[in-house]
Amino acid sequence: MSKIKEGDEVLLYLDKKRTYKVRVDKDRQFHTHKGYMKLGDIIGKPWGETIRSSLGVSFYALKPMIKDLIHKTDRKTQVLYPKDIGYILFQLDIGSGSRVVEAGTGSGALTIALANAVRPEGKVFTYEIIEKHMKTARGNIERSGLLPYVEMELKNIVEGIPQKEVDAIVLDMATPWMAVPSAWESLRGSGVFLAFSPTIEQVIKTNNSLREHPFIEIETVELILRNINVGNNRTRPQTIMIGHSGYLTTARKVMAIK
Amino acid sequence: MSKIKEGDEVLLYLDKKRTYKVRVDKDRQFHTHKGYMKLGDIIGKPWGETIRSSLGVSFYALKPMIKDLIHKTDRKTQVLYPKDIGYILFQLDIGSGSRVVEAGTGSGALTIALANAVRPEGKVFTYEIIEKHMKTARGNIERSGLLPYVEMELKNIVEGIPQKEVDAIVLDMATPWMAVPSAWESLRGSGVFLAFSPTIEQVIKTNNSLREHPFIEIETVELILRNINVGNNRTRPQTIMIGHSGYLTTARKVMAIK
Amino acid sequence: MSKIKEGDEVLLYLDKKRTYKVRVDKDRQFHTHKGYMKLGDIIGKPWGETIRSSLGVSFYALKPMIKDLIHKTDRKTQVLYPKDIGYILFQLDIGSGSRVVEAGTGSGALTIALANAVRPEGKVFTYEIIEKHMKTARGNIERSGLLPYVEMELKNIVEGIPQKEVDAIVLDMATPWMAVPSAWESLRGSGVFLAFSPTIEQVIKTNNSLREHPFIEIETVELILRNINVGNNRTRPQTIMIGHSGYLTTARKVMAIK
Amino acid sequence: MSKIKEGDEVLLYLDKKRTYKVRVDKDRQFHTHKGYMKLGDIIGKPWGETIRSSLGVSFYALKPMIKDLIHKTDRKTQVLYPKDIGYILFQLDIGSGSRVVEAGTGSGALTIALANAVRPEGKVFTYEIIEKHMKTARGNIERSGLLPYVEMELKNIVEGIPQKEVDAIVLDMATPWMAVPSAWESLRGSGVFLAFSPTIEQVIKTNNSLREHPFIEIETVELILRNINVGNNRTRPQTIMIGHSGYLTTARKVMAIK
Repeated sequence: MSKIKEGDEVLLYLDKKRTYKVRVDKDRQFHTHKGYMKLGDIIGKPWGETIRSSLGVSFYALKPMIKDLIHKTDRKTQVLYPKDIGYILFQLDIGSGSRVVEAGTGSGALTIALANAVRPEGKVFTYEIIEKHMKTARGNIERSGLLPYVEMELKNIVEGIPQKEVDAIVLDMATPWMAVPSAWESLRGSGVFLAFSPTIEQVIKTNNSLREHPFIEIETVELILRNINVGNNRTRPQTIMIGHSGYLTTARKVMAIK
Repeated sequence: MSKIKEGDEVLLYLDKKRTYKVRVDKDRQFHTHKGYMKLGDIIGKPWGETIRSSLGVSFYALKPMIKDLIHKTDRKTQVLYPKDIGYILFQLDIGSGSRVVEAGTGSGALTIALANAVRPEGKVFTYEIIEKHMKTARGNIERSGLLPYVEMELKNIVEGIPQKEVDAIVLDMATPWMAVPSAWESLRGSGVFLAFSPTIEQVIKTNNSLREHPFIEIETVELILRNINVGNNRTRPQTIMIGHSGYLTTARKVMAIK
Repeated sequence: MSKIKEGDEVLLYLDKKRTYKVRVDKDRQFHTHKGYMKLGDIIGKPWGETIRSSLGVSFYALKPMIKDLIHKTDRKTQVLYPKDIGYILFQLDIGSGSRVVEAGTGSGALTIALANAVRPEGKVFTYEIIEKHMKTARGNIERSGLLPYVEMELKNIVEGIPQKEVDAIVLDMATPWMAVPSAWESLRGSGVFLAFSPTIEQVIKTNNSLREHPFIEIETVELILRNINVGNNRTRPQTIMIGHSGYLTTARKVMAIK
Repeated sequence: MSKIKEGDEVLLYLDKKRTYKVRVDKDRQFHTHKGYMKLGDIIGKPWGETIRSSLGVSFYALKPMIKDLIHKTDRKTQVLYPKDIGYILFQLDIGSGSRVVEAGTGSGALTIALANAVRPEGKVFTYEIIEKHMKTARGNIERSGLLPYVEMELKNIVEGIPQKEVDAIVLDMATPWMAVPSAWESLRGSGVFLAFSPTIEQVIKTNNSLREHPFIEIETVELILRNINVGNNRTRPQTIMIGHSGYLTTARKVMAIK
């Protein structure tokens, strides 16, 4: 049975809104407003076990998921929603061994998900133009344990992308249409371009730019997620929902338009 | 530059609606109603190159994506939409090395996506109760090249799942609530349960069953995808859309309810 | 030109969030935190004119719309959203002269909209079981000026509806399925039944009950409204939206099932 | 009890897809592929009664609703969906006695709904630039019995609207932004402007034009209707749905921007 060991990251779960990510250190006490826990006591327990604080309050010791790591990132920027990340990972068609370019890095949330998808044989090359963001992102990615699969650089990819023959490029930046030429140069033939953009004006400009370059299968979609409250004779979609995060535009590079 | 070689699967792309998946064989001719192509001529060309048929019609030679492989599966059953597959892959929190259980296999579409996500170090254990489906699925998965990462068995998982300590379980079956007890037994602590169900009655029963077992973070969502037609002063969501595929219910195993 | 006169209800509009409904009285001053206005000064002005307060702040003098009257109701209960009211009015197929039954009255918001639709020749018969709600509703309807077109009664319509041969019945109550028999008795042949229900369990029970009575064209829909932020290169659906208010179930009475 | 009489329009209903609108004439036979009916036999029957054809097939004799009249219009143009018509009627804030301007008339579908809303004391002034459409619309409106409440003219309202001090204006035309100045001139203060537009480019231009004139409360929304299949343990939203019809932009005239 897979057990919790020294050095593991653990998500201490009190309830949906109150979770704490800690690194297990046998000599450390972790303090919450519900009492403290001796982290050494967790060692050797199975994941999902219940842990009691000094005040007798129970927590679950969960193994952090990628979405927990993202949720716990130190954020200077808006991070992508899980609904959009899942779509991006699948549409980019990446897997272990893929080489992916990302811009901008932002808080590194998507970078973490990309790195997890390409490990152990692939690599994420991520670019950011704001030094402060890159610094924050580096910390977040490091804490996720996925830094070995990531290369970061402070650079505006509109001026060119050093990597060539990459499998996929994903853009979460204000002016994705300006990066279309360098994206085409960097992608291998048949590779995937994807841009996430909150506004329709960005979408129109990006589509226009893609049409002026050898890209096919240009598509823009929007994903809407509804949470459903289930049970107790009160089943219904949630009253308040996120109505919009952004549009997702994808395309596939060809060598030349036929 | 990555080039097309003997034995590669290629997607010959005429237009959005007319694509053909073929295996490159230097001695083979591939016939379409737009003329034939000598597949040997493609060898050594970069992915995304244009190929001309004997009738002078141009095709793109694309590297098949996972979603192309799924789209080209031989289908005896309804297959999941890409929007749902992306969400499933991310919520299952899998990556290279993960061990995942799936039931039922159906046409093997999701199996292919799961296998790609866990390769090269992980494994998908997929179960199906209808022999004909399993046979079709095996052919589909074999053609995808991902069979090394899949183990198939004709078995009703309601009666138990042989694998223990698996990282995630995904159910696309008529009565997911009946499989909740064996899913709990099979999962490692902190592992993810996910069920895809078209109807709300299935959702209610599955939620009720999950609540009677040590599962937390029980959530049901629905993903709605809108295609946007962009450009030429006619930007607008598409008139006809898929209004519903199914609900996605997720939960996380704990060792006992606190 | 239609002008504001003594006794008119006026909506003083500072901005989207700050509007005040007042009755014009030539001797009255209306005080706001932005200064007071002499209401006599508004008399003779056209609707839509700008009015200045004693502190030099400008307000628009708008003619209240039905949706303003509803928005300004004294509320003890959740009121219907405009998106649902518009759908209800059209589906009920009412117009001047129609006789409509409503239960429950709630705050009288829908009653006001119904009364406006059937005036001057029709009538709304509205039933409520909670005396406090009926009292509040009466005040709201009276202030809207539409009380002449409304008859109110404290009564549970599950026990029967006094009016017969009514054109339409609309239910916004916890157990609409229990009122299906008396609704059928009260409707004229070909008349419309409509129930608004937040939960899917209510919808299933109401559909089942309708199927056991001579009703045809039984339909359940859900209306989703998205606000679009337009312009300044930032056009996009609003981030936060109302994800669900309720389901709308309609049916048409026939004399007997063929 | 309200009964069917000579001269009434009746909707003969075989099933959801097969309905026939006929005028009751005691000497007429109505032929269908399921046999003929002597229309004289219907006279004196209650609405919603079952009628048998010469071949023993049963039909319901329904009183046509406004949405049936619209559904049965002779169509040269796309007609609005009920979901949008209900929203329009409520947002326009019209009722018996209102004076409304519409452009373009199209097939007259919305005109019929507007006329029903303003009768018996109001009037709809509808404008169309294509003579053939106006002719078709006149026939449709005449058959609905609502022509007394409608005035039609072949005219481009961009050049001006003859009526002044109207309560509301609704535009379903290709270039609504070009009609904003004449709409402002024609509306009374506090009156409502509404434009229905399929594309986002139309929406942006219309919003920009409204902002350059004395209009407040400028809002654009989109209404999405989901049909729910209910019951038999198969409750779920319909698989295929209308994903988009158009955006609805509303505003309110003020005399001058404060």
